[in-house]
Formats: sequence, C-alpha cells, structure tokens
Amino acid sequence: MPYNEALKKATQAFEVYKKTTSSQRALLLRTIAEEIEALGDELLETASRESNLPLARLTGERGRTCNQLRLFADVVEEGSWVEATIDTALPGRQPLPRPDMRRMLVPLGPVVVFGASNFPLAFSTAGGDSASALASGCTVVYKEHPGHPKTSQLVYKAISNALQKCGLPEGVFQHVSGGVEVGQELVKHPATKAVAFTGSYKGGKAIFDLAMQREVPVPVYAEMGSTNPLFILPEKLKEDTAQLARQAAASVLLGSGQFCTCPGLLFVPDSDVTTPFMEALEEELSKATPAKMLHEGIAGNYYTGLGKLLKEQGVQAIVQQETDVLEGRAALARTDVQQWLQNPALQEEIFGPFTLVVTYKNTDELLAAANALQGQLTCTLWGTNQEEQLQQNLTDVLRDKCGRLLFAGVPTGVEVSHAMTHGGPFPATTDSRSTSVGVYAIKRFARPVTFQSAPQALLPQELQNGNSTGIWRTINGKLTQSSINE
Amino acid sequence: MPYNEALKKATQAFEVYKKTTSSQRALLLRTIAEEIEALGDELLETASRESNLPLARLTGERGRTCNQLRLFADVVEEGSWVEATIDTALPGRQPLPRPDMRRMLVPLGPVVVFGASNFPLAFSTAGGDSASALASGCTVVYKEHPGHPKTSQLVYKAISNALQKCGLPEGVFQHVSGGVEVGQELVKHPATKAVAFTGSYKGGKAIFDLAMQREVPVPVYAEMGSTNPLFILPEKLKEDTAQLARQAAASVLLGSGQFCTCPGLLFVPDSDVTTPFMEALEEELSKATPAKMLHEGIAGNYYTGLGKLLKEQGVQAIVQQETDVLEGRAALARTDVQQWLQNPALQEEIFGPFTLVVTYKNTDELLAAANALQGQLTCTLWGTNQEEQLQQNLTDVLRDKCGRLLFAGVPTGVEVSHAMTHGGPFPATTDSRSTSVGVYAIKRFARPVTFQSAPQALLPQELQNGNSTGIWRTINGKLTQSSINE
Repeated sequence: MPYNEALKKATQAFEVYKKTTSSQRALLLRTIAEEIEALGDELLETASRESNLPLARLTGERGRTCNQLRLFADVVEEGSWVEATIDTALPGRQPLPRPDMRRMLVPLGPVVVFGASNFPLAFSTAGGDSASALASGCTVVYKEHPGHPKTSQLVYKAISNALQKCGLPEGVFQHVSGGVEVGQELVKHPATKAVAFTGSYKGGKAIFDLAMQREVPVPVYAEMGSTNPLFILPEKLKEDTAQLARQAAASVLLGSGQFCTCPGLLFVPDSDVTTPFMEALEEELSKATPAKMLHEGIAGNYYTGLGKLLKEQGVQAIVQQETDVLEGRAALARTDVQQWLQNPALQEEIFGPFTLVVTYKNTDELLAAANALQGQLTCTLWGTNQEEQLQQNLTDVLRDKCGRLLFAGVPTGVEVSHAMTHGGPFPATTDSRSTSVGVYAIKRFARPVTFQSAPQALLPQELQNGNSTGIWRTINGKLTQSSINE
Repeated sequence: MPYNEALKKATQAFEVYKKTTSSQRALLLRTIAEEIEALGDELLETASRESNLPLARLTGERGRTCNQLRLFADVVEEGSWVEATIDTALPGRQPLPRPDMRRMLVPLGPVVVFGASNFPLAFSTAGGDSASALASGCTVVYKEHPGHPKTSQLVYKAISNALQKCGLPEGVFQHVSGGVEVGQELVKHPATKAVAFTGSYKGGKAIFDLAMQREVPVPVYAEMGSTNPLFILPEKLKEDTAQLARQAAASVLLGSGQFCTCPGLLFVPDSDVTTPFMEALEEELSKATPAKMLHEGIAGNYYTGLGKLLKEQGVQAIVQQETDVLEGRAALARTDVQQWLQNPALQEEIFGPFTLVVTYKNTDELLAAANALQGQLTCTLWGTNQEEQLQQNLTDVLRDKCGRLLFAGVPTGVEVSHAMTHGGPFPATTDSRSTSVGVYAIKRFARPVTFQSAPQALLPQELQNGNSTGIWRTINGKLTQSSINE
C-alpha cells in the first residue's frame, strides 16, 4: 500500500479506534496472539528461512511475542496506566474557587513502527512497539523490515484477521513495504504522530533528525543498541575466574552476538588471575560453533567493524578467525583503560560475537572508565560482598549511564514485565525517558489532557465519578480505587 | 558567573544532590519559600518596577510561587512520584528463572531553566521549572530574564541562603546573566541534561532546534503559548448573550492579555444574537482601562502583530485604538470560518488584550474549524445540556488539540495542583507528553532505571524490601504500600 494512503487510513481509523473501550483493545491484542499462534509452523519456518535463526529460538520468540500481546491486554484491561488524576471542585475556596479538573493519558494518533532484523517476531510486525501502540489506543503503520518480508506479511495477515474478527477498521494496523525513501516519507508525513524504531545508530539517528526537522516535530523512540559494559571487580575475579569467563562468553556468543544487550566490553582487573581469565575466555570463544548471521549485510558489518577495531592502537587480537560472508565467527581482543579512554572508537558497538576486554590497574582507572561511558542499554557489575564500597561508588556512576544495571547474571535476556527498562541515555536510545520493552512502553504513545468543569456525560469513562472499571486514580492527591460521591 | 563554570559546578553538585533524601529536598524547597517570603516588600516593589505589574498581582504571584515550592516539597516527601516498580525473582520459573528487577525514576542531571517575562516570580528564578527540577533531584542553572534582573537576583539570593541553611552545595542552583548567546551556549553545553523554557514560539523553537542538533540531544520543555480558542454553541449564546460577552472579555483583558492562556480566538455562531454579543464584547473592550505592558518590546510586538492581522483579507476591526509605546490598549476584530480556514496567519498568537471573533454558520463549519486548529494549551467549549451531542463531537476533536479542555469558566487561571496539564501539542509546547504546571511537572526531569539482582544495600531506599517511607509501589503488577517479606 502507498505510504500516504496508509497514513490517511490510519488517521481516519484513529477517530474510531481512540474511542474503543479498554476491553475492546484487550480483545484485539489477545485475538492477534491467537491468530499468530494459528499460523503454526509456517510462520516459524518462514522466519527461519529469512533470518537464519534456528527454529527453537523462533519458537521461544513467538511465545514471547504472544505473551507480550497478552500482557498489554492485561494492562489495558486493568486500566490504571492512564494515570487518571482528579482534583474535585472547591467552590468555597478563598480567594478563588477551584474548578473540577480531571486528567488522564490519551493516545497520540497514528504511530509509524520500524521492525528489527534481529527479532523478526518480538521486535517486528506484531512486536513490542506495535503491541504497546495498539494498547494505548494509537493506530499503527508498520514499515516492513527488508530482512524478513514474508514473515512480516504472515504476521500482518494475522493482525488483519484479528481486526476483522473484532469488528475494527483495517486502518488500525497497516503494512507498508519499500526502501529507505518510504521510511523517510513515513517519518516526515504530517499525519504521523510518533515513531518507534529498533536497529542501528545510523538508522535511528537519521529518523530522529528527520522527525525533529518536521514543521511539527514528533517523538521518536529509537533503540539503537549499545556496548553493554560488564565490570568485574578484583575479588570477584579471584573467587571464580574460569566460571565468570564462561558466563561472560555465553552472553557474548548468544544468538551469534546479535542481541542489543550482548556485552561488548569487559572491564577486568589487571591482576594475577587476568591471564587464567583471558585463557578461559579465549577457549570459550575459540571453540564456539559459528552460526549463520541474520543476513550478509550484518555479517559484512561485523567483520568490517572488527577489522577496523583490531587496527586501533593498543588493541591486541586474542581470538581472530577468517571472515565469512554469512557465518559469525567469534572474536576477542584486549586493551587497557588508558588506551580505551583515549580512543572513542573503542566505545563503538560491534554487532556480533565479539567482546573487547579492557584491563584496569586500580580503582581510579575503573571509575574513570565508568565515568567516560556513553549512554548504554545495560551495565553489569560483578563484585563480592567484601567490595560493597567500590560497588556503591560504581553504582552511583553507572545508574546515570544506563537503563538497566545488573549485579548478577548477564544482560542478554530482556524480561517482558513491569519493572523492565529497555532503554537508556543517548546513544542507546533517542529518548531515555522511556522503555521499549515491558509495561511502561505503553506510555510512550500517550500524553496527558485535563478536562476542566466537564459534565459527567462528556468525560471519558476513566474520569467519571463512578469508577466503573475500578482503576487506581489519584483523587485530591491520594491514590484510591473508590468512586466519587455525587 | 560564566556559563561554563556554572555548568561545571552544577555537574559536581549533582553528584552530591542526587544522593540527597527526599526529606532533604523537601526541606530545601520549603526553606526557599521561607527565604522568598523573608524578602518582604522589597521583592514585590522591585518586581513591580521591573515588570509594570501591580503589587496586588505580584502579591498573589508570590503566594503562588511559595505554594508551588511547598506543593513540590509535599510530593517529594510523600515519595511515590518515582514510580517504584518491583518484579520479585521467580527462581523456579520454567524455562528460565526470572531475576529480581526494581525500577524507579532517577534525576537527569543539570537542568537549564529560562524564565518568563510575564511571571517574574511564578515562572522565573524560583518558578515552576526550577521548583520541579530541584524536587526531582536535578541541579539548576538559571538563565536570568533580562526583563527583571533585580527581581531575579533577589530570588537567587533567597535560594542561595536556603542552600546554605540546608548545608547543600551552592552549585545546586546557580544564576547566569547574559544575552541570547549565553542562552545558546547553555543549551549546547554537554553538561546540560535538559532545558525548560517559557516564552515565545521564536525563542522556544530556537532552543529546541539547538538542543536537537547537539551531539547528544536533550529534552526541551518549551511552553510557547497559544491562541486558546473558545467555542460558544448556538443555544448557549442565546441563553446568556451579554453575560458570556462579559466573561470572555474579562479573560481576554486579564493582565493586559499577557497570560499564555488568554483566549485569542472566539468561535461564535452567526445567529440573531451575534450582533448583541458583538456589541457587548465591543463595549467591554472599549471601556477597559489600559495598563502598562511588561516592557516596550512586548507592547511593540502587540501593536505590530495586531496591525498585520487587521490588514489580512476578511478581517474587520471592531475595536481599534491608537498604538502606544507601553500601554496595552484592547482590540477586537471579526472574521468568519471560511476566511479563517483559508489563512494560517489568523491562527497566530497576538500576545496582548486582543481577541478575534470567528463566526460560523453551521455545525460543519464549527467542526471544520476545530479540526483545523494547531496545538493549543487550552480549548474552551461553552454549550448547554441540550447541545450534548454537538459538545461530544467537538470534545472528540478538541481533546487531541490541547492540554486542557474547559467546559465552563475561562482558560486564564492555571491551577497548581495534581490534575493540571499546562502543556499541549506543538506549537503550544515542544513536548506534549508533559506539563509545566502542577505535580506531574516533576517527571519531566527524570528517567527510569532498573536495578537487576541488586543486593539490598546497593538499592536506593525506595526500592529496598522494607518500604521505610511507605511509598506506593507496583510489586508484581499490583500497587501497594507494603514491604516485601525477606
């Protein structure tokens, strides 16, 4: 469908869709999940052919996608996400009476969603951005990812079926194919009220710039990846040298390093266990069986970026394998904090099964490195209880550098839940005030409006006196599920 | 103080200030209010000399400013604004365990605040932007407004005293003087993490553009005013012709029309009561005693804008008075919806005691006008109970055009409370997802961070198991004030 026709239909459909009840939107989201499941093996096989991802992984990803749709259905049905806030009238207040004011979040309008190549299901057609936008009451124009067009069409069909079954206009969700120019036109179109994107820095930043230069700028939620630094403290490394190497390596290698949260930087102490740690890491990465990457472009970028990095001053290749047109072969390099601090190129993300070990000599170097980090999706800090003060000092720095700070485990594996933040300061995303995974993602596509002195009949249900759906509301500054006595 | 030194100190002070407890920040805000009150008549007299605003108005504005500081103190002390959200670990979950995740809002860092000429107290040095930024845990670099430098210095002194009394670094709040270039440098400086502004479209848009072009873009909350259209429905106009004219006129004239929410557009039916309505309006505006405007620049812009508008095709001057270098003399003009729809110039804000009456012939014209509106801080809709369907249709359109939609009363008078939205779609503001007045303003200066698998000792107090301050938290999807059993 031509992009401008899609946006016209999305605008018309918004006038219908924005007035749907939360039950209607919850039903739509659940029906989409059912329709996706009904696609059966064809979806998984198509996605596997197009993305080179194994069926087991895609089975998991389909589960995640459908769970995500159902979680947003639950959130919408529960309804408190609209932040209903009511200040009742104080007609006798001196010197002036206070009018009745009732505030809630309302949807922004048509949202343009760009899918990600590395998650053909969970971050694509019916992925987190589409699910949260539909949940909020926005209509969606989805720009097909060229890496998996057939998968995208299948999922689009499932969404279309669901819209039809729920008696909603087809303009609520539309699917647009095309190249970079089509994407640009979608972002620039006056009907577009927000944009969501998951992918490279280059792609995300170009979209952001276009959107900010519009006559009417619109919010852009671009998740552009990060290097996800992992810090290992001295006592911790001593305690468990080989096991930590294996744990870090597994996260670096997961999905051929094609996750936004793969740890691409390991800060480790320069101590008497550095050598055994490096040997264990080297062994893990050397012996890993390479898998096909998503497509040749991704593989090409991986080897190009790697080649460039290994030529930087003070960077020593530890594991380096022959390049391939499609297979992602693991790599490992080493440098030290002094070199790393001097060279911003060593902060660039290399998307693939690679990590750069950066050794530090002392606490000052460690804190200097933490302070020099650019914005990250995640930071990870592994220390012992005996290193609490150092952990505290690092935490004070790292919490301002990332969206998620881990103290155990690995950053890969992004939970779809209430407390998740999959976001972080620029350049991890273009809007650090949001998350692209988890329940709070719904708030990206809404804004507050206050109804003042409104007759009950003209108020949205959420703001009427009788709290018929029992949502949590802030009434005169207090959270409550009560109705207002008339 | 040089701007770069101020930002350096603000960055250093942030490391201390971000770790203050909510009680410490509440104490600071209350102490600032006390110190402002302690300035006594000197503050009011200085502000009146610099702004031409009468003492009675400034007395009210001082009360508003101090109440605002105390309201944010209450919000911070209560503490639930941080949106603490906890998903507890599920170690036995299949196929993978769920880690413990705890999310809350944390402050962004140093915020640059630009004051407004029309509110030398409530939207300036210790105004809403500064109060909400300080409440959130951000440090502030305030750019003095050239319209009231002495007032600004006095308030700055009050804030400095409060910081000293509270044992906080002077870098928590700093005051910078200078021209447009200094403002630009403040916005462009890498240490700046967010910007707040109240003023003209030209000024706000320039700041927005600069901030988006930074290597690391930062949020800009610019409130740039609006025309605040007021719609009167046919039956309503019949019912109460003269009284509605008086009510509208009073809002147009309030403070010489120098409020962001003065109604600059009145949509009225072309009916047999249009003439008496226009006559009543004409009488009110003609007989109004003109007052000095804020400064000669504002007065100059008012008469220039007015002169330009009155030359537009199809615009008929009803009240037009001689221009003055400082006095704001009321004006009134009339056009119809067809003319208005054809000419975007008729949507431009004229800051001063003026309104443009736009007559509509029927419901279609009325809805077409509503649909053609650009983003507004407020829209007002006056109708009778008998006009409920038309009100509903207009509400469906207008709620997407503004931050606040009134069904009675006038848009001037912005309540500082929980349910207020003082914001709205571009060009009313640069970020429709926020408000610059009321409790939710604090969230502008914060972003979420998730702590995963963190030891209790490394968690912020708000996320620890024992909910020592009794804040509302979302635990496993349920709002509660309970602690977590260990």
